[in-house]
Amino acid sequence: MADISRCMPLSRESVAAAHQAIKPHVHRTPVLTCTTLSHFASTPQTEHDLEGTEHAGQTPARPKINLFFKCENQQRVGAFKARGAFHALSRLTDHELSKGVVTHSSGNHAAALALAAKTRGVKAYIVMPTISTPSKIAATQGHGAEVVFSGSTSQEREAVVQDVIARTGAILVPPYDHPDIVLGQGTAALEFEQQVKDLIAVKATLSVRDTDALDAVITPCGGGGLLSGTATALSGTGIRVFGAEPSFQGADDARRGLKEGKRITTVKSLTIADGVRTPVGEIPWSVISDKSKVKSIFAVTESQIKAAMRLLMERMKVFVEPTAALGLAVCLYNEEFRRLVEQEAGEKGWNVGIVLSGGNTTMEAIGKLFAAPEPEAERAEGVVGKDGERKAENIAG
Amino acid sequence: MADISRCMPLSRESVAAAHQAIKPHVHRTPVLTCTTLSHFASTPQTEHDLEGTEHAGQTPARPKINLFFKCENQQRVGAFKARGAFHALSRLTDHELSKGVVTHSSGNHAAALALAAKTRGVKAYIVMPTISTPSKIAATQGHGAEVVFSGSTSQEREAVVQDVIARTGAILVPPYDHPDIVLGQGTAALEFEQQVKDLIAVKATLSVRDTDALDAVITPCGGGGLLSGTATALSGTGIRVFGAEPSFQGADDARRGLKEGKRITTVKSLTIADGVRTPVGEIPWSVISDKSKVKSIFAVTESQIKAAMRLLMERMKVFVEPTAALGLAVCLYNEEFRRLVEQEAGEKGWNVGIVLSGGNTTMEAIGKLFAAPEPEAERAEGVVGKDGERKAENIAG
Repeated sequence: MADISRCMPLSRESVAAAHQAIKPHVHRTPVLTCTTLSHFASTPQTEHDLEGTEHAGQTPARPKINLFFKCENQQRVGAFKARGAFHALSRLTDHELSKGVVTHSSGNHAAALALAAKTRGVKAYIVMPTISTPSKIAATQGHGAEVVFSGSTSQEREAVVQDVIARTGAILVPPYDHPDIVLGQGTAALEFEQQVKDLIAVKATLSVRDTDALDAVITPCGGGGLLSGTATALSGTGIRVFGAEPSFQGADDARRGLKEGKRITTVKSLTIADGVRTPVGEIPWSVISDKSKVKSIFAVTESQIKAAMRLLMERMKVFVEPTAALGLAVCLYNEEFRRLVEQEAGEKGWNVGIVLSGGNTTMEAIGKLFAAPEPEAERAEGVVGKDGERKAENIAG
Repeated sequence: MADISRCMPLSRESVAAAHQAIKPHVHRTPVLTCTTLSHFASTPQTEHDLEGTEHAGQTPARPKINLFFKCENQQRVGAFKARGAFHALSRLTDHELSKGVVTHSSGNHAAALALAAKTRGVKAYIVMPTISTPSKIAATQGHGAEVVFSGSTSQEREAVVQDVIARTGAILVPPYDHPDIVLGQGTAALEFEQQVKDLIAVKATLSVRDTDALDAVITPCGGGGLLSGTATALSGTGIRVFGAEPSFQGADDARRGLKEGKRITTVKSLTIADGVRTPVGEIPWSVISDKSKVKSIFAVTESQIKAAMRLLMERMKVFVEPTAALGLAVCLYNEEFRRLVEQEAGEKGWNVGIVLSGGNTTMEAIGKLFAAPEPEAERAEGVVGKDGERKAENIAG
């Protein structure tokens, strides 16, 4: 990967430069609105709402929170990760890339790197655990990458990566912990900001108040590439940036890290939001822990994530993976967030942007997730996370 | 409902007038493209492909079939039916509407009529079988309609409708068998035609050949409102219009009717495409049986519908109900259709438009549909329909 000393600074201007570099290769994904969900977000939600029934009664004449959704689930490879991968490769010379690229991931970064490498005409090695689902292995191979198998622990996987580097001379492209990845992921926010302005200009009723822009953006936070990239892209604009994490089994490491004043480096959570099962990386943390960049991180429970995912699919008709539902879950069910909006936005309300990070799930996974009335994850929640349904806290960063 | 003698003729001009009337009330739904699905449609599909694995091998440099998708799943109430309902009501006077409107439907037309009535400020009575799922009853009530319960057979339902009319003086708004409904449903095609022109103008590579327009449009065919409306809207444009039906348990009544030279009036199919379990209505039939308007109808099996639905969700990230997958299933799996494209389009290829008719399904329904390796419907298929996986025929109309 490009030597960090050679990287552009983590600034809004660098994100704009990254955007120019990757524009030919990524989709400008659409931004959607949904009156029903904006009304839900503007109305206090109760436990009962998690079951899928909503208030039959009155809805406010005009919502206090107006939601805008950036559909990165429709990005190439089905996730925002394509942005970071294309940007990282654009910063490397043909010579540096001559031996190929390598990463370890069984998720969206693997597919993104495979696609970016194929587009650039270089070899990609993807280290995946032997136990990965055959469809994921096939998908990665489908993008022309060579899958190299490893054990499941991060030590085993990293050892195999080192093997590949030693054997082939391939260059490592990490999934989030690098400035070029952070800047690449931030490009979605630049588009989002402009698209919302354009939408409001066309249809003034879309805005909750006399403004032409977003007041806040929420993104999921796993390794932190998307959240720190978004905060970097929007710094100086006055748009508040928030992170969303699952509370289950301590997956809210960024939220807890802000509370404790230091980055948490290990996460062992099997949250259904499988895109954010990792701790925040060092470079993303440098942005996320800066309160002038990221205002707060909020945590939500597994059943809140599921309820938000259901609404996105059944009501908004967008196909998303559980991780993509984190932002909406915060808007609908996190009382700290809702209190914050009431305090800061008051009667005027806010235009809130939610990044739908990805759409890579399957019919079978959906069936499994929504079949059991009380999945294991939720039963364990009370014991492990001590985060009851309505008790998720937020920690100002 | 408006006296038929008072209705506008079934012409492209009348659809344009309907469009003007309903524009303030319906969404101009987006049109999407998907490179992956266009490549699939341009490559021969095998049985194996129904399992979800695709050709890892070569894809043609430029697809022969380029697909465009009209997202009526994102229409208000989640289906194109909002268009017909708003149009039907726009053609009635306040006096005619003073006692309210009534229909029998447990599906998308019920929600559409309830919404249109609420918007117009009139009462809606929706006759639904007692055994309807509570969520559908709640949704209809959520739109402000009064649900009136009936038995499940069409006789029982119609008897209750007659009761409601006698008791309240409400006016009947049928789901498809009326010119105003046909004209309303046709408005989606007018938008589609223009949106594809606009898309191709911006990005010339989107077209498979030197044309700025659609070559063909495929819609599902149940009662026939959408198909006949589409054909009416596009008559004289040179855009070929095709219908798509399930073959299961004789749900391909329009296809069979064309073969036999007369409309089939009874269908008893439990196809997963529950939006098209009805026979074609008399007025839609007058258009569908006119070969200058509808070129052909094609039938697909239950597993082909499921495979297409999976691709729409997992690959294209759009949330659709099974009925909406009929058009893609024809493009990918119906050999008669594929042969027709080869003969008529040749090397130049076609731009094919597919109407995604609706998105009203649930996580639980998806889980059920994709959980069982061999659902009952598919086992029965060989016996009942005699339509093997690759044997669906098409009948020129």
